[in-house]
Parts: sequence; C-alpha cells; structure tokens
Amino acid sequence: MRCGLVSDQGELLVHRTRPTLAHRGPEAVIADIAALIREVLQEGGRRVAGVGMASPGPLNPKTGVVLRTPNLRWNNVPLKDKLEQALGLPTTVDNDSQMTAYGEWWKGAAQGYSHVLCLTLGTGVGGGVLINGRIYHGYSGSAGHIGHLIVEPGGARCGCGAVGCLEAYASATAIARRARERLAEGRKSVIIRCAGNLESLTSYNVYQAALDGDTLALEIFAEVGHYLALALTSAIPLFDPQVVVISGQAAEAGDFIFKPLRKRLGELLKLRPAVPVLPSTLGDDAGIIGAAGVVFLGGRPSID
Amino acid sequence: MRCGLVSDQGELLVHRTRPTLAHRGPEAVIADIAALIREVLQEGGRRVAGVGMASPGPLNPKTGVVLRTPNLRWNNVPLKDKLEQALGLPTTVDNDSQMTAYGEWWKGAAQGYSHVLCLTLGTGVGGGVLINGRIYHGYSGSAGHIGHLIVEPGGARCGCGAVGCLEAYASATAIARRARERLAEGRKSVIIRCAGNLESLTSYNVYQAALDGDTLALEIFAEVGHYLALALTSAIPLFDPQVVVISGQAAEAGDFIFKPLRKRLGELLKLRPAVPVLPSTLGDDAGIIGAAGVVFLGGRPSID
Repeated sequence: MRCGLVSDQGELLVHRTRPTLAHRGPEAVIADIAALIREVLQEGGRRVAGVGMASPGPLNPKTGVVLRTPNLRWNNVPLKDKLEQALGLPTTVDNDSQMTAYGEWWKGAAQGYSHVLCLTLGTGVGGGVLINGRIYHGYSGSAGHIGHLIVEPGGARCGCGAVGCLEAYASATAIARRARERLAEGRKSVIIRCAGNLESLTSYNVYQAALDGDTLALEIFAEVGHYLALALTSAIPLFDPQVVVISGQAAEAGDFIFKPLRKRLGELLKLRPAVPVLPSTLGDDAGIIGAAGVVFLGGRPSID
Repeated sequence: MRCGLVSDQGELLVHRTRPTLAHRGPEAVIADIAALIREVLQEGGRRVAGVGMASPGPLNPKTGVVLRTPNLRWNNVPLKDKLEQALGLPTTVDNDSQMTAYGEWWKGAAQGYSHVLCLTLGTGVGGGVLINGRIYHGYSGSAGHIGHLIVEPGGARCGCGAVGCLEAYASATAIARRARERLAEGRKSVIIRCAGNLESLTSYNVYQAALDGDTLALEIFAEVGHYLALALTSAIPLFDPQVVVISGQAAEAGDFIFKPLRKRLGELLKLRPAVPVLPSTLGDDAGIIGAAGVVFLGGRPSID
C-alpha cells in the first residue's frame, strides 16, 4: 500500500509504501493504513483537508464500503467509517482505477479534457470514466470496468469466469503469461535471459527484451495494442470520450504498445473523428494524486 | 417519416406517416416535415409547447445540425434552424435512438429506472443512454452507439467499414440476411414460404417461421440473443446501467430472442448483480413520445 501527502496544487510532497499483508484480514490492514497515514502526516507537518483513499473494488463510493475484493478477500468492509473513526479526518473512498483517471485529469495527461476514458494495465485491467471532469460511477457504483469487455469470444479464460476479456490479453499479468506460454512452446527469445527463469518472468522482462529488438517481445506488445484497439473500437462509440489515457505498469512499454494500438484503431474506427490515445504522465502516482484531488475539489467530483 | 401530437401526459393523440423520398434532397424533405407537422397540429387543434424531432445521426444535439446520415445522404443540414424558421415553434433535434430511450424512460419499459441502456434493433442497431433520467450525449454528441461494438472479431462486414459489429448480427437487416444466406446454402425452412421469395425476405418472415417452430428461424434468433448477450457483457460493466431495454422491429420476436439472451448473459456476467433486460413497451411510438418528452421536460433533459 502506498500513502502520500499531496498539496492543493497536486504536488506529491511525502510518499511512503508498506506491504499490505492481506492474509491478516481487514482489521489489521486498516490499522496499518491508519498508522501509515499518521506517519506521513507527521512527516509532512501540514494542516490536512482530509483523506482520499483509492481502493480496489467493487465498492460503494457513497458509503465507502468495500463490497468484495478478490485479491484482498474483503467482504462488505466499511473502510471509510473505520478510517474516519481511527483518524478523525473526513475520508472519501473510491475505486483505484477511477482515482487514477481523476489524477490524470486533475494533473496529468487528461488535463483540459472533459470526457475521459482511462485504462490501467496492471495486475488486471481497470477503467475510469470522467464526464465533464466528474467521476461517472454508474447505477451500482462500479462503472468504467472496461477490463471485462470481450475482445476474443471463445478465447483465454479470465479470472471473472468469462472468456476472452480484455484483461486476459492486455494486463501486465497476461503479458507475462503469454510470454511464458510461447517460451514453453519453444519460441526463441531474450525474454528468458532478462527474466532469469520462466516462473519469475514479468511484463517488465518482456519490455527489456523489446528494447533489444526481440521478435517475440515485439509481437506480444503488438497483440496487446491490437486487443486494446478492439476494446476501444467498442467503447469509444458507446461512451464518446474526448481522450483516452492508458496507465499502469504495462503502459510503460510505451510505443511498443501505442504504435500498433493507434494504427489498428485508425483502421477500425473510420466513421468517427479520431480520439487521442495518450500515455499516462503521472505513472504510479496518478491514484494518490486523484484521491487527493477528490478531497480538494470535493463537493461535486462525481456524477451519479 | 412519422409525426405525432403528444400530450404532456405522453399520450399519442394524432399520428401521421409519409414516405421520406430522400432522393429529393434535404430542402424538399424538410418542407415535407414542416407540412406534416402543420397537418397534425391542425387535426389536433391544441396549443403546442414545441417540436421535438428524432432524427438519424450523427448530429449535434446542441445546434440541431445533422452532420451526416448515410441513409439520407445529408451533410451538415441545420435541421433545427430550418424547422424553426418554417414553423415559428421552438424545436429540439436529437438522435432517434436516444429519443427511443427517452420515450421508454418517460412512459415505457424503463419508467422509474435511473440509468438506462436502450438498444434499437432496426435497419441498424441504435443505442441510447440515460444517466439519472437525462440523455447522455458524450463529448461529440454521439454517445450510445452500441451497434458498432465488436462481437465477432474477423466476422461479418458492417456498413461502418469494420467487421464483426453487433449491427452485422442483431439488426433486422442482419436477421434477414442471415436467413437468406442459410437458405441459399440449402437449409430447409418455412421462412421461404412466409417470404414468398428470397429477395423480399424480411426479419418478420423469420418471426412468422419461428412461431411455427421452424428450426432455422429459432436458430437465427438464438444467435441474435447470443450476440446481444456478448455486447451487453461488454457494455454493462462499462456503463453500469440499472436496466437494459431492447426495442425496434427485431425485438418484436420477443422470447425467441430474449430467452437465449438472458440465459447467455447470466452465464457470462457472473461477478455483477443481474441487470434486467426488458422488451420495449412503446414499440414504434417510443421515438415520437421521447422527442415530445424532451420538449415537455425541457431545460435539463440532457447531460453533457
């Protein structure tokens, strides 16, 4: 978990991380979150407007209750109430991918744009949606989940139970898995040298190999670009954004993904004006800065 | 084209239709629209709040300019201004599929729901999106276009230039085309008896054959249900609606489409609460009633 002190200008002044150790259950994790916030406040020594929390979901952004998180195994945890009790500070809790989108809009790649679709390529594929600079939560509070848009019917199995979801093709996890599969099939590549061994291979090793001009690495990123283009071909006409931002660790592969993505999107989406597809500028800090932005711009940051 | 006089309670009091004869160009068509409205007003003999127009798009709902309509071959036609000049009445122009969604929300299947996704299965597949009972237009004014969501990558060619769009599988046009293709391949079916000949075959003939228990007809509607379920599996997590309404001539096939659709959607969308998928209750009148609703509820019917 990561905690930062952010100024009302969106500058990240202090920054601390700590392992979540989720197996201890929500009470212990929340106590650690509160302790980490206190540390950062002490170090920062500033008057504080409030606490903004970017949490994995699904959650209810109105009540701040985390409904269910597959990774943490939480179930109906009143995160907002618990943190307010522990810290005595007004707290907002919202989805991490929505907070990333909000951060990119407030201080990052989507500054000055009104309608934003933001994809975060990490362990999964998260999504955030802004309408006129306000977070769109949807009816049940969990809009923006673009990771389960089906890009390959009958394709790879996804953690959600369906098959062919974008997340099964474009997440950092999927990039590593696809590299492992092809290496196991006997494909030659320097990816394995970058990784050391098959088990510890990550999407970053695929990126290192791509920098070396490795054919397999370039092929895998081109496929990621292709699947992202397919997903955007479906999502852009539905949501009609002014800009698309791509964030998350896999997005750091940059043009290895963006070039094939933009080319393919141009071929597929012919009848509409082109929508710019931009890389994140805040990187890993977007979620923290976005959560702070919701506190500072509070009142009406969301549209329901 | 169809014109109706609608009361402030949403009752369709007077109703007239006239062929569009689009080959004469926009000036002649708009003169006919104005004449048709005058006829209906004369017959209705009521004081009139305004004119609401449901037009094919894409169009700009703020200026009422029709940007481009493949079927009418219009290009930047200031429909709102022309009608206001001709009639001296305040006029709103909006996308026909959005107006269908608005009609179903005001007086039809989506009454009482806040977040609505409405699909219209007609010549193409149109889409309308309501957020808190307000039309969501998107950045460029053309949100909700679910017809070009890709459900079969590498599949059937669509009029938009891409391949595998929902419209190429679930429109009334696609239903008739698919029946024609299979009959041409030698499949036995009573569809051909219902249609008379291959050229004049419509989706309604497929419906007639399904009522007779015809295997091919039932298979084609089950496929439509399957593709609609795929599209909703992608669209529901992104937009997070409270209800989905399915409208348009093909939707009149009812349970032949809805049963396989709901079954498949339940299999695919496991991690979210089920979203009801309801048939239109206003049928062909939804667009007219929706366009009138925008006039009566005017001021803030849309969210941008």
